[in-house]
Amino acid sequence: MPRVSQDHLEARRHQILDGARVCFARFGYEGATVRRLEEATGLSRGAIFHHFRDKESLFLALAEDDALRMADVVAKDGLVQVMRDLLATKNGADWLGSRLELSRRLRTDPEFRERWAERSRNLTLATRARLVRQREAGNLRDDVDVDVLTAYLELVLEGLVSHLAMGLPADDLEPVLDLVEQSVRRRSAS
Amino acid sequence: MPRVSQDHLEARRHQILDGARVCFARFGYEGATVRRLEEATGLSRGAIFHHFRDKESLFLALAEDDALRMADVVAKDGLVQVMRDLLATKNGADWLGSRLELSRRLRTDPEFRERWAERSRNLTLATRARLVRQREAGNLRDDVDVDVLTAYLELVLEGLVSHLAMGLPADDLEPVLDLVEQSVRRRSAS
Repeated sequence: MPRVSQDHLEARRHQILDGARVCFARFGYEGATVRRLEEATGLSRGAIFHHFRDKESLFLALAEDDALRMADVVAKDGLVQVMRDLLATKNGADWLGSRLELSRRLRTDPEFRERWAERSRNLTLATRARLVRQREAGNLRDDVDVDVLTAYLELVLEGLVSHLAMGLPADDLEPVLDLVEQSVRRRSAS
Repeated sequence: MPRVSQDHLEARRHQILDGARVCFARFGYEGATVRRLEEATGLSRGAIFHHFRDKESLFLALAEDDALRMADVVAKDGLVQVMRDLLATKNGADWLGSRLELSRRLRTDPEFRERWAERSRNLTLATRARLVRQREAGNLRDDVDVDVLTAYLELVLEGLVSHLAMGLPADDLEPVLDLVEQSVRRRSAS
């Protein structure tokens, strides 16, 4: 038996996640059968479920991976930048696909909602931390609590995901995001 | 045969819509079987489908009815008030139930999306008209186009519907809506 290095395990894990992301985005959670997951990842079910206990665990890992990546963008450029990226990629993005499946499963599956709740704090924490830094740098309005601003940005993000999911026209949303960004900033008049 | 007055027809129509609203909210679109619609409305399938061609037409009429009622609130008090009402009633509201079903069907059914598109303009028009009046009254910020403000408020509404649908905590959203309201108003400094 060959020695399997940590790097190799990590690479394999990412290969599975990348394939699964495309598969979930294309076929939805229910439609992403084990057969299709095998095709999308180029690996056998044995290999896939060696890394992830079951399909739900794979989906959760995927959603968590996406949330961590979003949190990285948030830490660097803020949640509005996440929204701009989302808008730029539109419905074609695999990222949006899995985000939509996440929203849908959260809506329809209370047990899944509980499993996800533990993992979903990262994005909120990253958003909040970024806002705190922005406030310290004097860029943020200081008449509204940071928690309120965090909840506000998350609400707009959810609206944007939903809007794109419904296939509504998104060409006119750039200036809306400008307005959102501006509404958390320090007002130029003060 | 008894003479059926226009009033009677209208009353019957509302009886069906009210029952159907509860039924769709409780069981979802697919789960709202003809049998359940009969129970919820207290009428026979014959009576129900005398007024509405089929289940989809009934659902569309319901969504349109809700959108008109929302448009009335918007015309009087603005879209943020619609959001405040939504927040006050939370998940228990039948209105939210059918709104959620609407969002879900718009996501998953392109044909339905097309049928709805013709009917969904009312709310946008009411929101826009209210904003124009507010601008004329000097209450609205004048550095952002009314269409952008309209799209902004609709995006936040969609986020709120989605947030409530996912069963996320909503206790902390009142100040978020204050912020939203404030961000379309004329700034006190100017």
